[in-house]
Amino acid sequence: MLVLGLDPGLALTGWALIDGNGSRLVLQGAGVWTTPADHDQGRRLLALWESFGELVASSPPQAVSLERLYFSRNVSTAMAVSQARGVLVCAAARAGIAVHEYTPGEVKQAVTGNGSAPKQQVATLVRMLLGAEVPRRPDDISDACAVGICHQHAASLRLAMARASG
Amino acid sequence: MLVLGLDPGLALTGWALIDGNGSRLVLQGAGVWTTPADHDQGRRLLALWESFGELVASSPPQAVSLERLYFSRNVSTAMAVSQARGVLVCAAARAGIAVHEYTPGEVKQAVTGNGSAPKQQVATLVRMLLGAEVPRRPDDISDACAVGICHQHAASLRLAMARASG
Repeated sequence: MLVLGLDPGLALTGWALIDGNGSRLVLQGAGVWTTPADHDQGRRLLALWESFGELVASSPPQAVSLERLYFSRNVSTAMAVSQARGVLVCAAARAGIAVHEYTPGEVKQAVTGNGSAPKQQVATLVRMLLGAEVPRRPDDISDACAVGICHQHAASLRLAMARASG
Repeated sequence: MLVLGLDPGLALTGWALIDGNGSRLVLQGAGVWTTPADHDQGRRLLALWESFGELVASSPPQAVSLERLYFSRNVSTAMAVSQARGVLVCAAARAGIAVHEYTPGEVKQAVTGNGSAPKQQVATLVRMLLGAEVPRRPDDISDACAVGICHQHAASLRLAMARASG
């Protein structure tokens, strides 16, 4: 199963395509979509919509995985992120791709075995699981990988449970 | 000039199409787009995208007007609103419609002449300006009318200033 992990942002969205090949995870591609700060909001959101569309047209994932909307002390950042997130969730729905959401704790748990692992540890484990080709910078790529891995684990677990009970 | 005023929300988005016919404003239509709470986020955002698309296909506005992202004490509501708002701004950009934003104070000022007018007074003035056919409930329709009126006023003012200096 091919999963697209996303770490949404208006200026910068991290993405990672992760294939779940049996018990092994294989990174098929990762990167960032950026939008220029001097473009208006509509143009930036539309650029994000189009970047998503191009990627899923060339490598159609079975699922999109992203972190749940979280409480943030910086409300204006949270709202800008939410606008970008809304566009991506809508674009996924329009493309008929299932959207799965996980809390930050669930993502950390899936990647490191510790729901309150520090950010650096998550990044290190992501590179151990997917290989050293995961770019170190920006963080958003590693975060997109982590939430993609989280869905791969959750999906494997559901499959194993279905088999055990079936 | 036909202006589409929007008051975005995931559960309920108010909309109002207002024609600026010289000095007179004419309400061409108003209503709400609702999405069921038991549908998933992607489906709800996509329904909003499609409602917007249907309206602008049948009555293409020259401009979309909405309130600027505002600080809210209820962060989770603000983030849900922001997701819906992002989808609408992106849809407008995709349709090639200019998006204009105003602060709540600018909207109140334009409608009532008082930037800190109470909500009820804005609703009363909206009905005086556009006619009694503006539905009283839900508030979101009146709010969409108000932000649409605000852009009509701002656009008229810019036109008058351009003429005076030209």
